[in-house]
Amino acid sequence: MSELDTLIQLLARLPGLGPRSARRAALFMIKRREQVMHPLAEALAAAARAIRPCQICGNLDTTDPCAICRDPRRDTTAICVVEELSDLWALERTGAFRGRYHVLGGTLSAIDGVGPDELNITRLIARLGPETELILALNATVEGQTTAHYIADRAAATGSRISRLAQGVPIGGELDYLDDGTLTAALNSRRQL
Amino acid sequence: MSELDTLIQLLARLPGLGPRSARRAALFMIKRREQVMHPLAEALAAAARAIRPCQICGNLDTTDPCAICRDPRRDTTAICVVEELSDLWALERTGAFRGRYHVLGGTLSAIDGVGPDELNITRLIARLGPETELILALNATVEGQTTAHYIADRAAATGSRISRLAQGVPIGGELDYLDDGTLTAALNSRRQL
Repeated sequence: MSELDTLIQLLARLPGLGPRSARRAALFMIKRREQVMHPLAEALAAAARAIRPCQICGNLDTTDPCAICRDPRRDTTAICVVEELSDLWALERTGAFRGRYHVLGGTLSAIDGVGPDELNITRLIARLGPETELILALNATVEGQTTAHYIADRAAATGSRISRLAQGVPIGGELDYLDDGTLTAALNSRRQL
Repeated sequence: MSELDTLIQLLARLPGLGPRSARRAALFMIKRREQVMHPLAEALAAAARAIRPCQICGNLDTTDPCAICRDPRRDTTAICVVEELSDLWALERTGAFRGRYHVLGGTLSAIDGVGPDELNITRLIARLGPETELILALNATVEGQTTAHYIADRAAATGSRISRLAQGVPIGGELDYLDDGTLTAALNSRRQL
C-alpha cells in the first residue's frame, strides 16, 4: 500500500470523515505541503507527546494538574461533572462557569462493561465534602441520567449540595418542534415571574 | 496557544471539517494515541516526503513517472484529461478505463488568473498525435466545458481523435428529479435500440 493510501485510510478513521472526504482532505494537504501537511504532522506528534490527563479532574492538558485545576481564581467548591472532555470545552466556551470540573470519560453501561471503576467516580467522591457543590452536567440521555443518579446516590454521603442542569425549552426553540419530553420538563420546571 | 489548540486549528482547515468536528477528531485521536495519532503523524510526514507529481501526466505518486504511466499493460494511445486528481481516482475506481491520464490541476479561469500555462496544457498537447485518442473527462460545469473547448481547439492541430464523456440520465436517476439541462442532453443524445 502506498503512502497516500495509508494516509487516506488513517484519515478515514477520524469521526466525521468517510472515505470520500478523507481522499479530499489528503489531496487538499498534498497541494499545501508547507502550509498544512508538515505543520499538521508536527502538531500531531507534539500533541501526542505533550498532552496528558489531569490526575485531579481527568481534563487533558500539557500540565498535570491542568490549567483549570491550577487556576487560583476559580472556585474550588463547585465541581461540575461532565461525561466527556468535549462537554467541558462546551461549558468553557460559554464562560458561565468559574468552578472546576470532573471528566468521567463516559457513562455507566452494563452492556459495554463500563462500571464505576472505569469512570473516575471514586476520585470524584474523594473531592467532595460538606462545603462543595456538585453540579451534574451529564447528557439528558438515558445513559447520562442513569450515571447522574448513581453519582448523586454515592455523593449524598459526602454532605455536598447536589444540583443538575436545568431542562427546558432551548433558547430560540419553537414549542411546535420540541419533543414531548422536553416540553413536559419545561412545564414541570416552570418558574414564577 | 497549547498543542491541543494548534492541532484543532490545523484540523479545522481540512475540507469537510469545521471547528466542531475538528475538536471531535482531536479528542478521538488523543484517546487513541497508539492506534491513530502516532500512525497519522507518521503517515503525513511519510506522504509529504514520498509523494511527487508525475512529470508526464500530473498524477501524484511515490515514483516519477507514476505507476499508471509506467504500467506497460495500459493503452498508451488513449489519454483521458481530468481536472483534478480526485477525478482520476474516481475513474480508476470504476476500472472501466485502461488508458492513461492527464491531470490539469484545475480549469481555466480569467477571474482567478488561471491560464493555459498554469494548467499543464502544453505538456498535454505534446503527448498527442494522429494515433492518440483524447478523452475530455472534465466536469459538466461552465468552467469545465470552457476548458474542454479550449483543449479541443488546440488538440485539433495534432490530428488526434477527440471525444468527451457522454451526458445523460445517471444510473438510478429519476426523470422527475433531474434538472432540465441533463434531461435535454439525454434526449438530444438518445440512442437507437
